[in-house]
Amino acid sequence: MRAVRVHQYDNPPTIDDVPDPRVEGPLDVLVEVNAAGVCRTDLHVIEGQWADKSGVRLPHTIGHENAGTVVETGSAVTNVRVGDRVILHPLVTCGLCRPCRAGDDVHCENSAFPGIDTDGGMATYLRTNARACVVLDEDLPPAEVAALADAGLTAYHAVRKAVPLLHPGAHVVVIGAGGLGHIGIQCLPAMSPADLTVVDRSAEVLGVAEELGARETVLADGDQVEKVLDLTGGQGAHVVLDFVGEGGTEQEGIAMTRDAGSYFVIGYGGALGVATIDVISREINVVGNLVGTYNDLQELMALAARGRVRQRTRTYPFDRALEALDDLDHGRLPGMRAVLEPVPL
Amino acid sequence: MRAVRVHQYDNPPTIDDVPDPRVEGPLDVLVEVNAAGVCRTDLHVIEGQWADKSGVRLPHTIGHENAGTVVETGSAVTNVRVGDRVILHPLVTCGLCRPCRAGDDVHCENSAFPGIDTDGGMATYLRTNARACVVLDEDLPPAEVAALADAGLTAYHAVRKAVPLLHPGAHVVVIGAGGLGHIGIQCLPAMSPADLTVVDRSAEVLGVAEELGARETVLADGDQVEKVLDLTGGQGAHVVLDFVGEGGTEQEGIAMTRDAGSYFVIGYGGALGVATIDVISREINVVGNLVGTYNDLQELMALAARGRVRQRTRTYPFDRALEALDDLDHGRLPGMRAVLEPVPL
Amino acid sequence: MRAVRVHQYDNPPTIDDVPDPRVEGPLDVLVEVNAAGVCRTDLHVIEGQWADKSGVRLPHTIGHENAGTVVETGSAVTNVRVGDRVILHPLVTCGLCRPCRAGDDVHCENSAFPGIDTDGGMATYLRTNARACVVLDEDLPPAEVAALADAGLTAYHAVRKAVPLLHPGAHVVVIGAGGLGHIGIQCLPAMSPADLTVVDRSAEVLGVAEELGARETVLADGDQVEKVLDLTGGQGAHVVLDFVGEGGTEQEGIAMTRDAGSYFVIGYGGALGVATIDVISREINVVGNLVGTYNDLQELMALAARGRVRQRTRTYPFDRALEALDDLDHGRLPGMRAVLEPVPL
Amino acid sequence: MRAVRVHQYDNPPTIDDVPDPRVEGPLDVLVEVNAAGVCRTDLHVIEGQWADKSGVRLPHTIGHENAGTVVETGSAVTNVRVGDRVILHPLVTCGLCRPCRAGDDVHCENSAFPGIDTDGGMATYLRTNARACVVLDEDLPPAEVAALADAGLTAYHAVRKAVPLLHPGAHVVVIGAGGLGHIGIQCLPAMSPADLTVVDRSAEVLGVAEELGARETVLADGDQVEKVLDLTGGQGAHVVLDFVGEGGTEQEGIAMTRDAGSYFVIGYGGALGVATIDVISREINVVGNLVGTYNDLQELMALAARGRVRQRTRTYPFDRALEALDDLDHGRLPGMRAVLEPVPL
Repeated sequence: MRAVRVHQYDNPPTIDDVPDPRVEGPLDVLVEVNAAGVCRTDLHVIEGQWADKSGVRLPHTIGHENAGTVVETGSAVTNVRVGDRVILHPLVTCGLCRPCRAGDDVHCENSAFPGIDTDGGMATYLRTNARACVVLDEDLPPAEVAALADAGLTAYHAVRKAVPLLHPGAHVVVIGAGGLGHIGIQCLPAMSPADLTVVDRSAEVLGVAEELGARETVLADGDQVEKVLDLTGGQGAHVVLDFVGEGGTEQEGIAMTRDAGSYFVIGYGGALGVATIDVISREINVVGNLVGTYNDLQELMALAARGRVRQRTRTYPFDRALEALDDLDHGRLPGMRAVLEPVPL
Repeated sequence: MRAVRVHQYDNPPTIDDVPDPRVEGPLDVLVEVNAAGVCRTDLHVIEGQWADKSGVRLPHTIGHENAGTVVETGSAVTNVRVGDRVILHPLVTCGLCRPCRAGDDVHCENSAFPGIDTDGGMATYLRTNARACVVLDEDLPPAEVAALADAGLTAYHAVRKAVPLLHPGAHVVVIGAGGLGHIGIQCLPAMSPADLTVVDRSAEVLGVAEELGARETVLADGDQVEKVLDLTGGQGAHVVLDFVGEGGTEQEGIAMTRDAGSYFVIGYGGALGVATIDVISREINVVGNLVGTYNDLQELMALAARGRVRQRTRTYPFDRALEALDDLDHGRLPGMRAVLEPVPL
Repeated sequence: MRAVRVHQYDNPPTIDDVPDPRVEGPLDVLVEVNAAGVCRTDLHVIEGQWADKSGVRLPHTIGHENAGTVVETGSAVTNVRVGDRVILHPLVTCGLCRPCRAGDDVHCENSAFPGIDTDGGMATYLRTNARACVVLDEDLPPAEVAALADAGLTAYHAVRKAVPLLHPGAHVVVIGAGGLGHIGIQCLPAMSPADLTVVDRSAEVLGVAEELGARETVLADGDQVEKVLDLTGGQGAHVVLDFVGEGGTEQEGIAMTRDAGSYFVIGYGGALGVATIDVISREINVVGNLVGTYNDLQELMALAARGRVRQRTRTYPFDRALEALDDLDHGRLPGMRAVLEPVPL
Repeated sequence: MRAVRVHQYDNPPTIDDVPDPRVEGPLDVLVEVNAAGVCRTDLHVIEGQWADKSGVRLPHTIGHENAGTVVETGSAVTNVRVGDRVILHPLVTCGLCRPCRAGDDVHCENSAFPGIDTDGGMATYLRTNARACVVLDEDLPPAEVAALADAGLTAYHAVRKAVPLLHPGAHVVVIGAGGLGHIGIQCLPAMSPADLTVVDRSAEVLGVAEELGARETVLADGDQVEKVLDLTGGQGAHVVLDFVGEGGTEQEGIAMTRDAGSYFVIGYGGALGVATIDVISREINVVGNLVGTYNDLQELMALAARGRVRQRTRTYPFDRALEALDDLDHGRLPGMRAVLEPVPL
């Protein structure tokens, strides 16, 4: 089969002919990849930022947002059958450790992460396991949802954790309406009645946010904290979802949070710096967020099937994979995600 | 009546003769003060650290941990009667704003804080309101519980928020077994089956912690993070309650916290400094804690009445108030709290 | 002033001239009644069904769904001012008992219920207290929202309790799309992404339910349990909200509930009859619901102000109060609520 | 191997020589049974009460409370190794359905129940799967804990669900201090500070309950409801855990429950009969309880390892299995559980 492989960090990957993966373990599932999302993390992998952390050996196939068709299953697989259309949870989990037994898949003590620490899905076939497979509603084409498998899932997970805090009349602020934030902005009105304010540096992006349900938008031109305080009666928001997490949003996000409120960290790159007296005198919470559970992905697909969440995408034939990566790297995909089609349907 | 009053910041207060306070509003309650806890915050008030924040005008009566006997009530007071023994929630709240209507007294939008921004309880009488009064079980002498009104309440509140995270087999770490931590260490075994490890710089304090129910103790001699990780199978604790919040515990506490775990900030003075990638890749929570609710104080008194929480105290006659403040300031009250008795029972 | 008063049970009330009520206590609020909802409970009061339970002495002014304008306030009232437009929580609560301190207004240990056990709001003026007053958004005319004060609040409260159980892809069934159910059906899509099925005996009512957001409707013609099971893959719904509670819905509602699901009782009149083996082998919950909290009413008004909940009403001048009661009694108000205007705006 | 098998319902089982079970699937685990609890459900199975529901074919090996030593594992088993001491969750679950993915093992859509619908553990060997195995702390002998695998787990599960409702000063009532209740009574003080009252028909059993931590005991001699109301200030308990569920406790339990409180059904045999007006006017909850999760069993073993829960047992050599069943059937095991030792350690 063909696969997009990294041979040397900081060099462009190549599309290689490699042997097909095979079902080996009883819970393995072999998926023909109909759609593979192209994500900023792929660029980071190519740059070698994950080299130490993942310990992966080169050459290595990238791609961690995958949807496709089941073509072979191990002897113990009971939840999918050959021919099923599936979207894949990014982690291959054990199902036997305590976190798995509590439904907390992301903290599985024995997981693999295809595209990061094992071969990923920018290829004709991907080997994953039964626990990663969410069967797709027949109305959901793989190419439209693949890019939700990781980025979208992360946004959904954070929103789901925030929903119990978001009663009618509450305020929620989204910082950053890009790839992840864009999905969060759609999930929020679908799941809560709270008043949504979106903060971003791009007026164009804010226009889209309004169409998707933002009640207010705030251009991040330096006065964004004051503007959010003005919109919330001087008190700040009950929940701030920070999809940026760097470049000052870490401090601004906390400043936008109301006393007894919660600041959700989703984006990263920067650092929190807050005096403990401010944490306690305001009794605020800082909430980390990481990908999402298997059931979260199932729920996100339920939203997508009901037309509540939609990812704008540009599809590329598989042999133009490098062009897709390059378009992403050079900002030529505003407000949309690139999706490769290794095996078009 | 007599009152301990600050006339000039950074100078010792004096015991003055002043007019008795009177019931003015319909919800006012006048309490004869049988016991007034002496707290480190009193020292900070005297030093002027709260001058700007409180905006209080001098001279000013200190004392914010009070218990006593109701001697007069306003026309609308229905929950206490003259002669009732009461412990006083530190805040005088409005009962009408949304936080009050949700039981979140500490975030009342119109509260006063006797001893901080109005006259406090190191005096013969204190004027508070009906909403601050928790009737004491007849077996609980005011002098034994007064010092729980603020410090103890803060510790209880944090523990109560942590309890849902503390299943059998979970690990909880307490950093700092002093005034607040000492109460937290008693609340934990009363309210949860989790394995309790206490970290402190004093071997003597750790000995007391063991008697109070700590399963393990760790001397904070530089290796405390490693020791906690060893005690928790390398994973860290599900919950870390940091009663210090300065001098490095902010970083150590987060390092002792397990992935998907929670770090509770209770003490203060330092600052959090943590990369957003660590917050998200470990999906940890930072939880601020501030005093507690009225119902929390009622519950803490239920624990005290059942002998589950006990505060070691040294009582002082009222005219030795300055000696009590001085003893506290110079570390002559190890493991115990000073309590004044303006009107001994 | 004028007031609709019951002089003898089972006889029509009369519109009497009576002395104006006065502010007496410091938390009292006198409200000029601009709108008073006419509710089935008023008919029950007239019939004497509440005579024993309320212990009210005749003659007695009815009316428990009120909105109007503040005209006088007691000395301790700080949350409303003369001239404010308000909707009134049906209970006058003490604010001092433990349930009140937890925000659980309905279980106040010292409450009064105007229109039931004290004089109500079908009158020029109503005396209530500060704790009952929710200030109205200026865009919400009293006549449009008064009927939400009790019936609407009850529906909202039940939905709010159900929301944490209603993830995307979950099923929720509403039994009975009448006065209360009608509001529940509007709250559900505003607050949750779950798939909503409405069951009712009237095809016309089901048509309205569809317009309001029901995904599926089921005519209650005898096969309603089977139909709901068919719509839910044979498993039943995660949550069933029974706004009827009599005539067989008690058994049907439980039969429509999925294993590990919850059956919410809101309507009443009948009786549960279920074997304990069915409760445990299916691990189901039965959840009682009663009116709602003060904050619930504030949140419901936030939904109304955002156009998410709307009550269809027919207004009556005050001197046609008996006609309104009669219209309700004889089914001449399909899908709408009668509202008196004692003092039209 | 040898196995206790039912050949004809309502006839005594026999101890037969049968072929050893084998590991067949990749997640299968073969366990040498060191201890098998004898439970009232075994008597019901023998009587044929489960014949229709389980659909099992005779002859059939009983025994569903098992602990032992792993002797063989399937190819995909990673959580236990040959030689591990384990206690077995009663269900063999799939790990792939939505309930399993949420940690809700009991509602697995594809489970088997050894001893009920497949061959059980009163035998030399039992075949289960990896998902049922909880590794035992080395201080916990199988014979001491086996009888906790089902009955104890059920009691623990109910208590764990109740704990969030049980603050200091709250009241909890346990009805029935027998096999299950006995464990619940030990779990409660370990997990909550609430005041515990135990109701039972046996004064002897109540004596044991007091030793285990009951604050009050009430002899069920006809006045038990009044006595509980007296002990709770006339209001009833915040939580009632009914381990009987028949013979009138269904009604008494609800009468003992405070407004806004919760009645937990654990025992069964009778039927709820409660007017919907009582459910709503008191806003009470009825909560079903069924066995427990895998993590619940792990947590119960953590309590047992810390000496917080202890099951009194009488051990029987395997060839006296019928005597053990007979002793149970004839009430010769007061306050203790029979445990067979097919393969003594």
